[in-house]
Amino acid sequence: MLGVDGYLGWATALHLSWAGHDVVGIDSLVRRRWDRECGTQSLIPIKSMPQRVSLWKRVTGRTIRWQLLDLRDAVAVTELVRDMQPDALIHFAEQRSAPFSMIDLEHAALTQVNNLVGTLNLLFALRDYAPHAHLIKLGTMGEYGTPNIDIEEGFLTITHNGREDRLPFPMQPGSFYHLSKLHDSHNIQFACRIWGLRATDLHQGVVYGNHTDEVAMHPGLATRFDYDAIWGTVLNRFCIQGALGLPLTVYGKGGQTRGFLDIRDTVACVRLALEHPAAKGEYRVFNQFTEQFSVKALAQKVRDARAAHGLKTSVVHLPNPRVEREEHYYNAKHQKLLDLGLQPHYLGDTLIESVIKTVERHARRVDPVELEQPNVDWRRGGTAGWHQRVESPIRPVVLVSPSSTPRRSSPAAVSTRVAQRR
Amino acid sequence: MLGVDGYLGWATALHLSWAGHDVVGIDSLVRRRWDRECGTQSLIPIKSMPQRVSLWKRVTGRTIRWQLLDLRDAVAVTELVRDMQPDALIHFAEQRSAPFSMIDLEHAALTQVNNLVGTLNLLFALRDYAPHAHLIKLGTMGEYGTPNIDIEEGFLTITHNGREDRLPFPMQPGSFYHLSKLHDSHNIQFACRIWGLRATDLHQGVVYGNHTDEVAMHPGLATRFDYDAIWGTVLNRFCIQGALGLPLTVYGKGGQTRGFLDIRDTVACVRLALEHPAAKGEYRVFNQFTEQFSVKALAQKVRDARAAHGLKTSVVHLPNPRVEREEHYYNAKHQKLLDLGLQPHYLGDTLIESVIKTVERHARRVDPVELEQPNVDWRRGGTAGWHQRVESPIRPVVLVSPSSTPRRSSPAAVSTRVAQRR
Repeated sequence: MLGVDGYLGWATALHLSWAGHDVVGIDSLVRRRWDRECGTQSLIPIKSMPQRVSLWKRVTGRTIRWQLLDLRDAVAVTELVRDMQPDALIHFAEQRSAPFSMIDLEHAALTQVNNLVGTLNLLFALRDYAPHAHLIKLGTMGEYGTPNIDIEEGFLTITHNGREDRLPFPMQPGSFYHLSKLHDSHNIQFACRIWGLRATDLHQGVVYGNHTDEVAMHPGLATRFDYDAIWGTVLNRFCIQGALGLPLTVYGKGGQTRGFLDIRDTVACVRLALEHPAAKGEYRVFNQFTEQFSVKALAQKVRDARAAHGLKTSVVHLPNPRVEREEHYYNAKHQKLLDLGLQPHYLGDTLIESVIKTVERHARRVDPVELEQPNVDWRRGGTAGWHQRVESPIRPVVLVSPSSTPRRSSPAAVSTRVAQRR
Repeated sequence: MLGVDGYLGWATALHLSWAGHDVVGIDSLVRRRWDRECGTQSLIPIKSMPQRVSLWKRVTGRTIRWQLLDLRDAVAVTELVRDMQPDALIHFAEQRSAPFSMIDLEHAALTQVNNLVGTLNLLFALRDYAPHAHLIKLGTMGEYGTPNIDIEEGFLTITHNGREDRLPFPMQPGSFYHLSKLHDSHNIQFACRIWGLRATDLHQGVVYGNHTDEVAMHPGLATRFDYDAIWGTVLNRFCIQGALGLPLTVYGKGGQTRGFLDIRDTVACVRLALEHPAAKGEYRVFNQFTEQFSVKALAQKVRDARAAHGLKTSVVHLPNPRVEREEHYYNAKHQKLLDLGLQPHYLGDTLIESVIKTVERHARRVDPVELEQPNVDWRRGGTAGWHQRVESPIRPVVLVSPSSTPRRSSPAAVSTRVAQRR
């Protein structure tokens, strides 16, 4: 399990460990450093890796072996694979934020080099020391972009001028981060073809939620929960905005449609891939999501869930910081994981309300600035707000709430909290 | 002109300078360092960059401004673009050998990081300081692989389930080098889409020949000419083998079919792209080659050219060091440069004979070991031969010639020369 300290890596490690797999958890902890750099933090406090794995042992009697390792270190990766002889490598260990990759040249290059070199190190280590191990790699639905045709799972049979071939689906990623995942996909596919490695590339949708059966076993087993404009995913952000009585901020028209899934389905999908490995030499792609929504439909769902309790929520449309189509066709297949037995958790009011309850418990940790204007623009990169966050440790926080809903946390309390963090 | 010290970069710089363009020549000279590392060298001796540009000035009265610069240096690249305000950037400055990229993990990662980071540095510098400049980027036909359908120029209109879109052509590159060019292509296409940059991606075939009108003006203006298994291209290698009376070494069955072009057409194509720039925001692909041949057909052409002089040449099939289809459909379009006015130089006996004459003049510089078994295997990486070349400065050279043709250079003479080089 590479990237065990992350939002999904940790939840997946627990799920597999509970299911009886012998899990070694690897991470460089760079995500915690990036949090300090970006002035962001998990809404839910998370423990250190040694604390987490010993708590897991105490609660369940099961062992996750924790190892600090940077995937960019080729020698360390090679020794790891040689000495461990894993049946499978589950690879979450990449820089995974699109806005982070769009801040500036340094962050774009860091993202692509970090992600490519880590994966190349793994591929060569597998070739030389564990060619039968199954590489399960987290990719993204964002590799496809928004073509005007149905999105298949990785490959497409194309007929052209009377001839036919099954070819990689044409890709149009939307950020330097998404591009890095596509570069990885091509490298992995090549390694399977020439070295006979076996790999599953999970093209994952946008994940929401923060509870799985395993992280729910003890508060200290919580996984991180990001809501800011750099690391947060859209539904999580909407739930937090809703919980705080803030308007839900939709980028542009909100017609952008993507695949979504519950974190409980993420861990289930990885387990399904693990327990049904790819064949020798096979590079396969699973589209890992359960439902498609437009951004404005998601906002509506959160608004409806609040309205059921008599709470009003407003939706505001901000200028879109991304360059993307805001109205488009979108129909992506996601059959293969269902065929393996996935039982999806569809998005309902219960989930939204449970996330909102979690937010309310941790409301004092929310930095309201993170919920305002996005601070990375696809055209210009990191705006003043982003740099300020790094360069000036304490700054005034002015929160203007256009909403009349009762607030859980006063602006003053929040801004004090912000200052303390720095 | 980025990569001015290379085989094609130098010839192109002269061609554009002679045509009246104001050329600044940039290079890190890393290729000369890689030659020392790999124990390879140009068949034709080449002068230093300062010598070359001053000779060009003396012969023609024209100035090429020479500047030593490593594209991986983001600050230097940014200052270059900011201060120079170029109309166009012609980007040859990448690691361009497939076998080099397949030696081991280090060379694979070096190739991908070097090529991606250099191009990312250029893209951001263009965005910030010269958004109207035209980026002309050397890609490769090898990005396409060998699909079972016709290869179009970069994009393909796909109909699927009753809907239609024009999408990037699905790519299947065949080495970590070819993959790096595909990664570049995706990054550049994205930058054009979100920043409105203009770019032409020249998906070039395999180049042969060593003379253009400009390099022929003076022996000191020669461009490099590689024939070894790492840097040499196939027809150049066959000509050298033919000239030395050695058997022509075909990898595998020799049914591998690729696009080829004369170096005179390379320089003409770049000039056509330069003088007919892409529109703002446009990312366009030109397939830059003039004819397709299978490897065995090329060997036959060289054999025929020798036979016309009563010389016998044998062809041997070696185990293929690459993982690739050896019999396949191949039909790649190459219309766009013809539409812009390209007048192709088709491959004929005259060209083969002129290359062979050049070889004969420099026969004493040939290292026959370079013409034997390839020393990088796609499955295992660099073989003993490659490492030996770096690690042991002098080793015995045994040359067994199965051919009865008169030799231009005795094995002894050659092996002495090899020893001196090291």
